[in-house]
Amino acid sequence: MADRRPTPDLRSALVTGATGFIGSSLVDRLAKGGVAVTAIVRPGSDPDRIARLPDTVTTHTARGDCADLIACFQQAKPDIVFHLAARFAGSHAPGDIAGLIEDNVTFTAHLCEAAIASDCTALIAAGTGWQNAGSASGDPTPAPNTLYAATKQAADDVIDYYSRLSGLNAITLKIYDSYGPDDPRRKFLAVLREAAENGDTLDATPGDQLLHMVHVDDLVDAFVHAGNLLAAGEIRGRASHTLPSKQAVTLRDLAALWMSANGCRTRIAWGRKTRRDGEVMVPWDGEPLPGWFARIDLHEGLKGC
Amino acid sequence: MADRRPTPDLRSALVTGATGFIGSSLVDRLAKGGVAVTAIVRPGSDPDRIARLPDTVTTHTARGDCADLIACFQQAKPDIVFHLAARFAGSHAPGDIAGLIEDNVTFTAHLCEAAIASDCTALIAAGTGWQNAGSASGDPTPAPNTLYAATKQAADDVIDYYSRLSGLNAITLKIYDSYGPDDPRRKFLAVLREAAENGDTLDATPGDQLLHMVHVDDLVDAFVHAGNLLAAGEIRGRASHTLPSKQAVTLRDLAALWMSANGCRTRIAWGRKTRRDGEVMVPWDGEPLPGWFARIDLHEGLKGC
Repeated sequence: MADRRPTPDLRSALVTGATGFIGSSLVDRLAKGGVAVTAIVRPGSDPDRIARLPDTVTTHTARGDCADLIACFQQAKPDIVFHLAARFAGSHAPGDIAGLIEDNVTFTAHLCEAAIASDCTALIAAGTGWQNAGSASGDPTPAPNTLYAATKQAADDVIDYYSRLSGLNAITLKIYDSYGPDDPRRKFLAVLREAAENGDTLDATPGDQLLHMVHVDDLVDAFVHAGNLLAAGEIRGRASHTLPSKQAVTLRDLAALWMSANGCRTRIAWGRKTRRDGEVMVPWDGEPLPGWFARIDLHEGLKGC
Repeated sequence: MADRRPTPDLRSALVTGATGFIGSSLVDRLAKGGVAVTAIVRPGSDPDRIARLPDTVTTHTARGDCADLIACFQQAKPDIVFHLAARFAGSHAPGDIAGLIEDNVTFTAHLCEAAIASDCTALIAAGTGWQNAGSASGDPTPAPNTLYAATKQAADDVIDYYSRLSGLNAITLKIYDSYGPDDPRRKFLAVLREAAENGDTLDATPGDQLLHMVHVDDLVDAFVHAGNLLAAGEIRGRASHTLPSKQAVTLRDLAALWMSANGCRTRIAWGRKTRRDGEVMVPWDGEPLPGWFARIDLHEGLKGC
């Protein structure tokens, strides 16, 4: 399967979120493909994950102001920016608001400004299917289902402006759910494995929400392919696309598939947990990235996850 | 005409931007209508304009964090929030980005959070026609034409989330252009008058951009009317409306009307200034606020402005 994966048609790239789950896989792929990668990290990034970046990668620790990013761009001269840095929050407290907006909106604006200031006119940004997810009141108009998703939508507005007024060619790739080996995030599959190993019973929601589970290798394909589309001029201006799986599965189906794939069993008390506010039951249906589809079969992909 | 203006059907209101051009007129109208008004001001607000607020108005100096706003709401217990505070920027430098986002997006999120935390479920927010204005590249999809407009659009996304998930009933009123007596902003009419008084020749763009000039009294009507619609439950959930004039005029026509209304003459060198990036030539056409229209004739309204 590896030989059919897209190879990057880029000389140099700047990557944010390079120590994250998807970002680190993307950096590996780019570096293996001969792309000169500059990774933007933060003072608070995990040093172990920075140390695991390929040797050829240049790291830049962002101070948080725009001038610093402009200087970084002018030195790195990237062809393209892959912007995967984000602060996630499934829910928030009042004290989280300023930080969420700073990390997800202000940093995105600084990044666009710095790109434009150094004649880098290509940006791929990671968005979320949740930007268009919320319709709790029965209103069919899609809206962000969390403040996190609202900040991602806000970042898209900022990118809209830079695209329309400053000539930035930009694609937002809206990710639904992601999985794969060595996921550092404590998501459902990690909790499932832990409960299996400890023989615990896992309390869960009713589990009928539908999920687009996409393997990290497929997501990395999407970012590389989208980068190639921008580099080739096949997409210009502003675009936004989703990265769905072939077939959404319920959380219950996912648990059963994971157990089958990994030959283990977790007792799950379905329905003992209440759904969180804004829980997405049916994913929003957007326009998938043209020329890409999720290829890894879920049962296969779940092995070892 | 004054007897046909809407009277506020509200007991208490919290107003941001209360020292601004439209906000101060709104506060006057609310206070005269017997509404208990709490005005949120900032450490940097003009003391003279704070001093000019009606005696019945309670002022609260916002520290900038959410907890402070929550405490303010819990004391004031407003029925509704009129959110007119904004940082405007026709253009920006890299160093302005963080402040623009903090003032226009983070403050809006704090305000929504504080409203919800104190069971205030009605919000009227001032937006701008520029949120949907930019199509410089010929792309018909509307986009913000400035970073300022992008931050106003981002604030709308945040309001979308609070409306959808937390039961906030919210209307964004998108303002195009505003005018009226005692405008503290140095806008085109002020420059026109100054040039007339000094006998200077004014350098201007070609002047063929179309403007919806709406008198501040008409705008205040719109905010009061929208507040009444929320209070009566006639609008629920999330709405967004524009506040256009009956007929957009070109900047050249506006200058001629102003000179005629004020019996003076300014020499204008049309075309000597280049248009700024993102200049809106034809205003975006949205859905006007139902039950409201701009009533003041432009020639009449311009007298003394």
